Amino acid sequence: MAIPHPIDWTADGAVRILDQTLLPDAERYLDLDTVDAVAEAIRTLRVRGAPLIGIAAAMGLTLAIRRGPGSPEAVCAASRLLGATRPTAVNLHWALARMERRAAVAAEGGDDLAQALRQEADAIWDEDRAMCARIGAAGAALIGSDALVLTHCNAGALATGGIGTALAPVYTLHQAGRRVAVVADETRPLLQGSRLTAWELTRAGVPVTVITDNMAASRLRRGDLTCVIVGADRIAANGDVANKIGTYGLALAARAHGVPFYVAAPTSTVDPATHDGSAIPIEERAAAEVAGWRGQPVVPPEATVWNPAFDVTPAELVTAIITDRGVFAPRDVARTE
Amino acid sequence: MAIPHPIDWTADGAVRILDQTLLPDAERYLDLDTVDAVAEAIRTLRVRGAPLIGIAAAMGLTLAIRRGPGSPEAVCAASRLLGATRPTAVNLHWALARMERRAAVAAEGGDDLAQALRQEADAIWDEDRAMCARIGAAGAALIGSDALVLTHCNAGALATGGIGTALAPVYTLHQAGRRVAVVADETRPLLQGSRLTAWELTRAGVPVTVITDNMAASRLRRGDLTCVIVGADRIAANGDVANKIGTYGLALAARAHGVPFYVAAPTSTVDPATHDGSAIPIEERAAAEVAGWRGQPVVPPEATVWNPAFDVTPAELVTAIITDRGVFAPRDVARTE
Repeated sequence: MAIPHPIDWTADGAVRILDQTLLPDAERYLDLDTVDAVAEAIRTLRVRGAPLIGIAAAMGLTLAIRRGPGSPEAVCAASRLLGATRPTAVNLHWALARMERRAAVAAEGGDDLAQALRQEADAIWDEDRAMCARIGAAGAALIGSDALVLTHCNAGALATGGIGTALAPVYTLHQAGRRVAVVADETRPLLQGSRLTAWELTRAGVPVTVITDNMAASRLRRGDLTCVIVGADRIAANGDVANKIGTYGLALAARAHGVPFYVAAPTSTVDPATHDGSAIPIEERAAAEVAGWRGQPVVPPEATVWNPAFDVTPAELVTAIITDRGVFAPRDVARTE
Repeated sequence: MAIPHPIDWTADGAVRILDQTLLPDAERYLDLDTVDAVAEAIRTLRVRGAPLIGIAAAMGLTLAIRRGPGSPEAVCAASRLLGATRPTAVNLHWALARMERRAAVAAEGGDDLAQALRQEADAIWDEDRAMCARIGAAGAALIGSDALVLTHCNAGALATGGIGTALAPVYTLHQAGRRVAVVADETRPLLQGSRLTAWELTRAGVPVTVITDNMAASRLRRGDLTCVIVGADRIAANGDVANKIGTYGLALAARAHGVPFYVAAPTSTVDPATHDGSAIPIEERAAAEVAGWRGQPVVPPEATVWNPAFDVTPAELVTAIITDRGVFAPRDVARTE
């Protein structure tokens, strides 16, 4: 029983990824040895989760100069290719910009470019792993043992370079031998909860119960949940939280039953330039995600589909935000920056 | 454009049903000419919805004596077979008991048994159709035109012998030329909202937008919904409402946004013997409904699944109950009996 790792280097410096589109049916790893292959994997969601996308892009960039001497120009072209895969992912561009700077410094100083990029990619990964561990420690202290945690979507090991964000407190308690179990919303339309969260928790030996999203309110009423922990895609300066669609309804139900509602996220998720949640643009995704199921229609073609990918939970419904710098009231989270 | 009919007689007295398991992919009608075939159709959910199951069982019972002279004994055996298909469906047993009584009276009076049973089955169907129409009229007066109605699961024409319960006010407004449109929760795990509600509304020419269940809170916040209307499986004496899983969370979200939350149901749904919702048993159904999708696993086998089929919405979250005898405050609904 071990927490699965969604990414690694192969012995000869290629990028090995777990193909997340095949879970939970099959656990298949792909060795990617070109920039194109990494870009395809990010574009098709074989690799997903904002932190993991950043790490994968950084690692993928090293492949641009793996064979042959390499040049800053090759790095730049590869960076542009990788950067175009998921235009809205902030971590992706942050990681690529950091790799480009390192390449420029190496070229200036006459350092070995390949070695410099490999070190920088490892540093990005190491920092993410450490960030997850700090969120885990802060959350574990807050929650205590004998915990039953409700979560939504996947903000676990499969989304990061470490033990996740929302699931980090769970793994930290589990690794310390404390009793902890999880109830996972399946998270329609893409089922990240049932396909990914349930899979990684069972691999790690953490008991998990899957429910459909619309069962969460009944489960909260049942009275056996310790708290809700979810991740975040962006946190506004006032503490409003944008996260996977369904988070807001879950927060309303948690409030109705007096169950603490925690958001776990790195402080880099806080955007001081966004005053409140109303300023966060909500991506609407393709109707096909709701209307079909692996090619089979479940909605008549004459019907319209509304498919927002995220929602905004107002700060007043958030009990606390668990970050790599400690636990904050939502209104104070922007001050950590 | 017409409201679809899920059941009918064929010219030679067999029972024609719409196979609801194939929707929305295929609109296929089956002519059933044996009691066994009707029992199979009810058991496998080709025919579903409490009122429609009662009508189908009554119509199916006529097939027991369709060929040959027939006897009260043949009716009794057929009734037992049909009654065992869905043990928890109250309408099923109510309709069969009524048919048995009619058979007994016919035998006593020397009436033609086949004719008597056909008349009784038609009476059950006619009464259901009239009940739907009265709910529609009461609801339409309450809601008014230019309405955008959010609903959950399927309490429409496909669940009844008429224009449905929750959808009856929608069809009544539409047929009167008033502007009305629907937002339909897909309703996991069995997708009655996207597969059935969206299908019958598009067939009738009513504009419909499908959302996943977890999008309802965001849609309520958007401010364009006139009201929520759902059906009911059982209403307790105090006005608490048992209905399809997800109804309770929807009621919490409607309350948070000040959107009226209506329950539409015949007064026969009110159970004066049940004091409040805590006394209503909640059926837990097979894990496979959540864990698999047409044979493909979406939950890892090591995970547990919790699959309650219904939940209870407390009376205080229900704005009003729309019945065939008018509109009532939840606390007064038991007085209609």
